[in-house]
Amino acid sequence: MPKLTQLGLAAALIVLPQIGLAQEADTTPLNADIGFIFTTFMFLVTGFLVFFMAAGFAMLEAGLVRGKNVTMQLTKNIALFSLASIFYYILGYNLMYPGDAWTISNVLGAFSVTGLEPVGLEGAEPDLTYASVGSDFFFQLMFCAATASIVSGALAERIKLWPFLAFVIVLTAVIYPIQASWKWGGGFLHAMGFQDFAGSTVVHSVGGWAALTGAIILGPRLGKYKDGRVHPFPGSNLALATLGTFILWLGWFGFNGGSQLYMDTAGNVSDISRIFSNTNTAAAAGSAVALIMTQVMYKKPDLTMILNGALAGLVSITAEPLTPTLVESTLIGAVGGAIVVFAVPMLDRMKIDDVVGAIPVHLFAGIWGTVAVVFTNDAASLMTQLYSIVVVGVFVSVASTVVWLILKFTVGIRVDEETEINGLDVSELGMEAYPEFSAG
Amino acid sequence: MPKLTQLGLAAALIVLPQIGLAQEADTTPLNADIGFIFTTFMFLVTGFLVFFMAAGFAMLEAGLVRGKNVTMQLTKNIALFSLASIFYYILGYNLMYPGDAWTISNVLGAFSVTGLEPVGLEGAEPDLTYASVGSDFFFQLMFCAATASIVSGALAERIKLWPFLAFVIVLTAVIYPIQASWKWGGGFLHAMGFQDFAGSTVVHSVGGWAALTGAIILGPRLGKYKDGRVHPFPGSNLALATLGTFILWLGWFGFNGGSQLYMDTAGNVSDISRIFSNTNTAAAAGSAVALIMTQVMYKKPDLTMILNGALAGLVSITAEPLTPTLVESTLIGAVGGAIVVFAVPMLDRMKIDDVVGAIPVHLFAGIWGTVAVVFTNDAASLMTQLYSIVVVGVFVSVASTVVWLILKFTVGIRVDEETEINGLDVSELGMEAYPEFSAG
Amino acid sequence: MPKLTQLGLAAALIVLPQIGLAQEADTTPLNADIGFIFTTFMFLVTGFLVFFMAAGFAMLEAGLVRGKNVTMQLTKNIALFSLASIFYYILGYNLMYPGDAWTISNVLGAFSVTGLEPVGLEGAEPDLTYASVGSDFFFQLMFCAATASIVSGALAERIKLWPFLAFVIVLTAVIYPIQASWKWGGGFLHAMGFQDFAGSTVVHSVGGWAALTGAIILGPRLGKYKDGRVHPFPGSNLALATLGTFILWLGWFGFNGGSQLYMDTAGNVSDISRIFSNTNTAAAAGSAVALIMTQVMYKKPDLTMILNGALAGLVSITAEPLTPTLVESTLIGAVGGAIVVFAVPMLDRMKIDDVVGAIPVHLFAGIWGTVAVVFTNDAASLMTQLYSIVVVGVFVSVASTVVWLILKFTVGIRVDEETEINGLDVSELGMEAYPEFSAG
Repeated sequence: MPKLTQLGLAAALIVLPQIGLAQEADTTPLNADIGFIFTTFMFLVTGFLVFFMAAGFAMLEAGLVRGKNVTMQLTKNIALFSLASIFYYILGYNLMYPGDAWTISNVLGAFSVTGLEPVGLEGAEPDLTYASVGSDFFFQLMFCAATASIVSGALAERIKLWPFLAFVIVLTAVIYPIQASWKWGGGFLHAMGFQDFAGSTVVHSVGGWAALTGAIILGPRLGKYKDGRVHPFPGSNLALATLGTFILWLGWFGFNGGSQLYMDTAGNVSDISRIFSNTNTAAAAGSAVALIMTQVMYKKPDLTMILNGALAGLVSITAEPLTPTLVESTLIGAVGGAIVVFAVPMLDRMKIDDVVGAIPVHLFAGIWGTVAVVFTNDAASLMTQLYSIVVVGVFVSVASTVVWLILKFTVGIRVDEETEINGLDVSELGMEAYPEFSAG
Repeated sequence: MPKLTQLGLAAALIVLPQIGLAQEADTTPLNADIGFIFTTFMFLVTGFLVFFMAAGFAMLEAGLVRGKNVTMQLTKNIALFSLASIFYYILGYNLMYPGDAWTISNVLGAFSVTGLEPVGLEGAEPDLTYASVGSDFFFQLMFCAATASIVSGALAERIKLWPFLAFVIVLTAVIYPIQASWKWGGGFLHAMGFQDFAGSTVVHSVGGWAALTGAIILGPRLGKYKDGRVHPFPGSNLALATLGTFILWLGWFGFNGGSQLYMDTAGNVSDISRIFSNTNTAAAAGSAVALIMTQVMYKKPDLTMILNGALAGLVSITAEPLTPTLVESTLIGAVGGAIVVFAVPMLDRMKIDDVVGAIPVHLFAGIWGTVAVVFTNDAASLMTQLYSIVVVGVFVSVASTVVWLILKFTVGIRVDEETEINGLDVSELGMEAYPEFSAG
Repeated sequence: MPKLTQLGLAAALIVLPQIGLAQEADTTPLNADIGFIFTTFMFLVTGFLVFFMAAGFAMLEAGLVRGKNVTMQLTKNIALFSLASIFYYILGYNLMYPGDAWTISNVLGAFSVTGLEPVGLEGAEPDLTYASVGSDFFFQLMFCAATASIVSGALAERIKLWPFLAFVIVLTAVIYPIQASWKWGGGFLHAMGFQDFAGSTVVHSVGGWAALTGAIILGPRLGKYKDGRVHPFPGSNLALATLGTFILWLGWFGFNGGSQLYMDTAGNVSDISRIFSNTNTAAAAGSAVALIMTQVMYKKPDLTMILNGALAGLVSITAEPLTPTLVESTLIGAVGGAIVVFAVPMLDRMKIDDVVGAIPVHLFAGIWGTVAVVFTNDAASLMTQLYSIVVVGVFVSVASTVVWLILKFTVGIRVDEETEINGLDVSELGMEAYPEFSAG
């Protein structure tokens, strides 16, 4: 806002094209900047959309837990995002991009704090064919934080706050960046030709595996599977859950669109347009299929299934949002929606208690999306896709299990029975989310 | 997010300006791309803002219905957006742009699925003076979906889910695109000089006519007009309704700003700035007038009127957000706000039950906005504006009435009395939005 | 949306680069436009993010007041934004930018209505090295409105609607613009070298001083400090409060990022990237510190403190979001979070009743942020920073006190006891926010 403050600085930096009217070379520096400005600004815009997904997850989860656990769920969501923001720059970001070669010095160098380019790029020689480091960091951080958000929903209503946050730190500082480097850091999965455009596997299945192992080790909520029956625990605020879904849908345009990574040519911006259109179509198809299937199977459309159907459609298209046609995107998203409708009751039959449906949405639809790449992208090989899904899955499951078990047998991860029955809000936080409207 | 994945591809696509340092012609291809990138990205940004209006409508309507119908209203909103997303690409988009000439082959070709430009524009010859097809499709889709969102609010709390969705499909695949082609597809209203910058008539009045015919055919809610009196049914959550209004206000910057259609020159981006400023001013004026008028008329400011006043201000400026000055925008929006304050009770006196005030906001203020164009845009003729309002109104009213009546006399459009009294959530969906906080 | 409507106009405006293939001078006009388009579009994007902060404040405040005052708080928020939008263009904007010299004619000219550039820039000679007037006005307006939003939270639950709105008009039309001109209008604080990048002092402390004087003159809510104890009045909806915080966090990327004021070079866009990353980091640090401190001090993490900690982190980094490293941003934000944890109970001990914690967040953290500039920006002098804080503080406090006292002794500013006990919603507005879920 300081209209005049930096005028001096800015005037010095502006490459005034008028100056060089008669000298053709003088317009070149500006031209070289243009692609850099386009791509950098694209990262900032798509990055703030992905940031907003943190609010989407918070609202979705706050709406789907019971009223007595809402404050805790909100606390977990803002805390996990805050910790991810700090630990990803302290360790994760550099760990994820160890450089061109996996030499000892590169790997050691990876254990370092993220440094941005100097103010005004003074003295820097930025890669003008890409984007500013700050914009790349900002964008990548949001993906890392999203991975942690996936976990919080599945384990809601019974996990202790601090052990959960300890897991988040390990996940965002170490587990996520290491496996992400295999693909996006130019590691061995990338070298093999693994295709995962915006992270059906690298982000969503990773959050899903961490959630699955956590849900198994943590056990189901009290009374969820009593007397051989599944007892539904209705979400306390479906308006919030719907708002959260719409916010996530919005954020996904940034998630998938920004993953094009370049907006410096007509071809690249046109590709981002394809991605926006395909992403929206897959979400719509996942939602529509869940609507139709719950009508047919249960005679009553199920709003929570429809919301998760939309999200599953989004996860499904995330591995390849560029190459499909609109019709193919519809089919890919539709299968994602169908997966949710079948998988939610299946997990319940296995007594795996996933409060918000995060495992069907992010893990199962994430696997589907990663496989589906082979139908529309000739560069993808089914074997490589499957191999990569398994490698990432084994790594994240094993690493997560180790962390969950260490936490379980040291500080404990589950609240005691009385706390769970009374609700985590009153017992753990002493603060209700809706103090005036509590159930009698 | 795949930082390296597409580096090969991207490197091939990047027109490196450095290469042609000594050859002036070599920088031209990049220059030709720049306007295309600007306009395409502008459509993506304004398009995601208009997308978010779907969440705005959902929250506004969920907040203004009674608690027993909230889940249904949320379900309708996400379902209508999903179906609009699919049917608009299957049929609507091409129907709306039948090409330069209305030949038989063009019209037949219009009945076809939307195809985007190829990945990387490879082999395509895009119109570099405009924007990518994908971005245009994405932007236009959001307008089509908004039209359907308008209808859902007016008919809330008594219409059956599936007949409503059937109407949405016809509206978004056929009715909306046909009339939109008359203006924005280069049809006869366009040829006559009809001015409707972002759709006071083409979008808002269309949703309004569809809502009005539906509300009349459906009849008012039980008990709304009993014993010769109007019984207020207070909205269940005014915080959500206010959030929805702010989201719609935000989305409207995209709605009106993006309708400039070009951001490739200083003149165009300056015009978009005018539009943002005028749009905000008209909304503020509509809101302020409703605040003052309800204070004066009823001695108590009425928040729901203020919210609808802001929306009416936005609809009013939509037909011409570019040419007015800030003062003129204030006046145009203020009249919109006043229309709402007078029209809401008027509809009630006519026993037309519009749950959220969609008809005053979108139809009446839409007509006002379309007429008001003549005050600030010399290119507009009052006769042409009125003629276009009538033509669109007659077409949409007749077509909507036919569809509503077919639905009424085949599957029925209204829930039975018991369902309506118990609420649609429990009876039709078996799921309450706020299960723990239901009224005793 | 009028795909064809303006084709004629647009075609005329487009500077087709192809035309001048053989003439190097012909590509210059387009080149000269590019920086203008980048910066203008940047203002529109960051401006709509700051606009959305109005929704963030509304949700934060609606969530932190008691259920009986929610409708009133929502009404105040949308009304204050609407009035700010109108009075800032009628008077404030020109008052804030009196021109290069403080001559009589400039000052008189400042008392005039804002005029935007003509449509299509026809006949205008815009400063192509900056941005369009409309985009600058849009961006600056949002800062002015944010200042007023800060006040509404602190004075909630007991101030009358109309006197509050009268204060808002004076604040946004006169008080805010005058002091803002001292720094951002090129006035004497700017000349002295005062550094306040995006307004820790110029925006946040101003809102804070206005809130502090108001809170003192208004007095605490009934029963808040009874029998020598502080009685907590829990917020009615922490999910809304959390949503509001996330929306504010999102908006802050625009607030700080847009304050770079230029996006026409690689250096400028890279600086905006730094700002986004630093802003996010400071928010995360403020949130994390409040989490840890409330755990340590009270044994229970306090969500409302965490939310205010994040906001305090954001306010703290606002005076200088560009020069710090990520580690420095962490420290600056962390201190902000700590300030909130200490200051909230301190204000209570002084019986200054700030309903939402606006004074610690915006005033105290704003002062801290303004001082902290000296640690990372060599251009800042501690004396100048302190002097500017005091000058702005004295001016705003005196001016606000005068206005509050005039209002108090003419129309009165506080509702009567019965109204306060019953809640402002029923007594003043006759409309409850959650009519079906009221406490029994």
